[in-house]
Amino acid sequence: MAVSIAYLGPPGTYAESAALAYVHWFRQETGEESLLCPYPSIAQALKAVARQQADLAVVPVENSIEGSVTMTLDTLWQLDKLQIQQALVLPIFHALLSKAEDIDKIQAVYSHPQALAQCQVWLETFLPMAQPIPINSTTEAVKYLDGDKTAATISSQRAAELYNVPILAFPINDNPDNCTRFWVLSLQPSQGGTHTSLAFSVRANVPGALVKPLQIFADRNINLSRIESRPTKRSLGDYLFFIDLEADPRQPSVQSALTELENYTETLKIFGGYTVLPVRSLQTENSAP
Amino acid sequence: MAVSIAYLGPPGTYAESAALAYVHWFRQETGEESLLCPYPSIAQALKAVARQQADLAVVPVENSIEGSVTMTLDTLWQLDKLQIQQALVLPIFHALLSKAEDIDKIQAVYSHPQALAQCQVWLETFLPMAQPIPINSTTEAVKYLDGDKTAATISSQRAAELYNVPILAFPINDNPDNCTRFWVLSLQPSQGGTHTSLAFSVRANVPGALVKPLQIFADRNINLSRIESRPTKRSLGDYLFFIDLEADPRQPSVQSALTELENYTETLKIFGGYTVLPVRSLQTENSAP
Repeated sequence: MAVSIAYLGPPGTYAESAALAYVHWFRQETGEESLLCPYPSIAQALKAVARQQADLAVVPVENSIEGSVTMTLDTLWQLDKLQIQQALVLPIFHALLSKAEDIDKIQAVYSHPQALAQCQVWLETFLPMAQPIPINSTTEAVKYLDGDKTAATISSQRAAELYNVPILAFPINDNPDNCTRFWVLSLQPSQGGTHTSLAFSVRANVPGALVKPLQIFADRNINLSRIESRPTKRSLGDYLFFIDLEADPRQPSVQSALTELENYTETLKIFGGYTVLPVRSLQTENSAP
Repeated sequence: MAVSIAYLGPPGTYAESAALAYVHWFRQETGEESLLCPYPSIAQALKAVARQQADLAVVPVENSIEGSVTMTLDTLWQLDKLQIQQALVLPIFHALLSKAEDIDKIQAVYSHPQALAQCQVWLETFLPMAQPIPINSTTEAVKYLDGDKTAATISSQRAAELYNVPILAFPINDNPDNCTRFWVLSLQPSQGGTHTSLAFSVRANVPGALVKPLQIFADRNINLSRIESRPTKRSLGDYLFFIDLEADPRQPSVQSALTELENYTETLKIFGGYTVLPVRSLQTENSAP
């Protein structure tokens, strides 16, 4: 039976591109086929795996311009059982899709808030009079374009092909180094690898409370590649910390760090150890329709 | 001449409530009047002050449920001249506004993504079939309610009064301790107070690079009330850190910490020292129409 992979749909989103890249790698590694299952939100894609309605979820974690995808972090903390199997980094190139006869005719640009933010300077320069309108995903508004020739969306080249809409400008992202990191998660124990991700809440307020956990890793020369704070949702000023380590959780120094860390945290959750898939194979898959 | 105050409009947003609370306090303190100026985005409200088109901006920084308002942090870093004059914490109680005859008739709920997220459990429980639709502000969609009796918005009680729309449910926020912290900013040098806010980028990657700055404050018993990472937008894995200290920037220990901090940061920006206005006076102002 094919492996089912949940992602933020509909087809044509960057999450689908990431899922396709994973499918490509997975087929080469195992010879197995996969089935892509679109969900209306990141939370629902993750919950589908927690409820065993899907085998894997591919979800965005962080974009180089817009930062953390807070929905992913908050849902992972809340679900408390998913483990990271892989990470992958997808280069993001945005296109302006529209059935307008001319770019000057465009009055509204629909897209996901992160995509609008990533093209902000381009929009202010080339479409200063058009209204940016945030929606749930980069492809949700493609269906409006047929009926409204003054509307445009910021979406992927793949979405333009899938839905047969002309690309009026490409690439339109303000920063050429725009990329998004995704995690592949399942209920299986993670296999270890080059990175370890975890999150914790602390007992007291932030001050020394955060220095000590960071010191534990610094003392062992374990590199942190990211730290992100999120509210515990209990009260203002009460935080969780999400941390990525550049180290394998099976390494003795990491194991001793995690044991010591328990003394300085209130709740500690280990999301597993994993490797980052090489970008080359992803780009090959992405360039296919 | 009245002091002009920029905020994320239109009237009826929580940013307007925060601005009104500030106006109330400012009038009591100085006897001076103020003029509220709505802007279509947080970035535009801040830029209006940087360009001297408004004297002050009142902008949200952080919500107890949804976390940082990244638009505020990113714009402050980029503008590089605004100083924080005051902070204030506003309790947030959401209402469901609609002209529907009955709550069961509602098919779509429009609001700012943060407000939708803050009422997620309530919506799933009482309006499971209604589609949540993210828009630019909590009040933007109030105008749709006249023509569409299957639509609702999540907004403030004040918006219901201003726009004469019935409240079908109140309060609907999932967490009763929902509150948002705002900063009041201007081009004037800040006056000091109980808190200091700053941001910095670091030369190397995060690991020891972040331990050292935190250690500088811990060594001096300076409490950090918040730390937030944001991408530098240069490349994935390259961050800025926003830090709030529970200390006056004029204190000798803070001055020596900031001097030492320069040795461990690439770019260091001090956003000033300020006090947090008492909540009691804000609640009084909010309960007024």
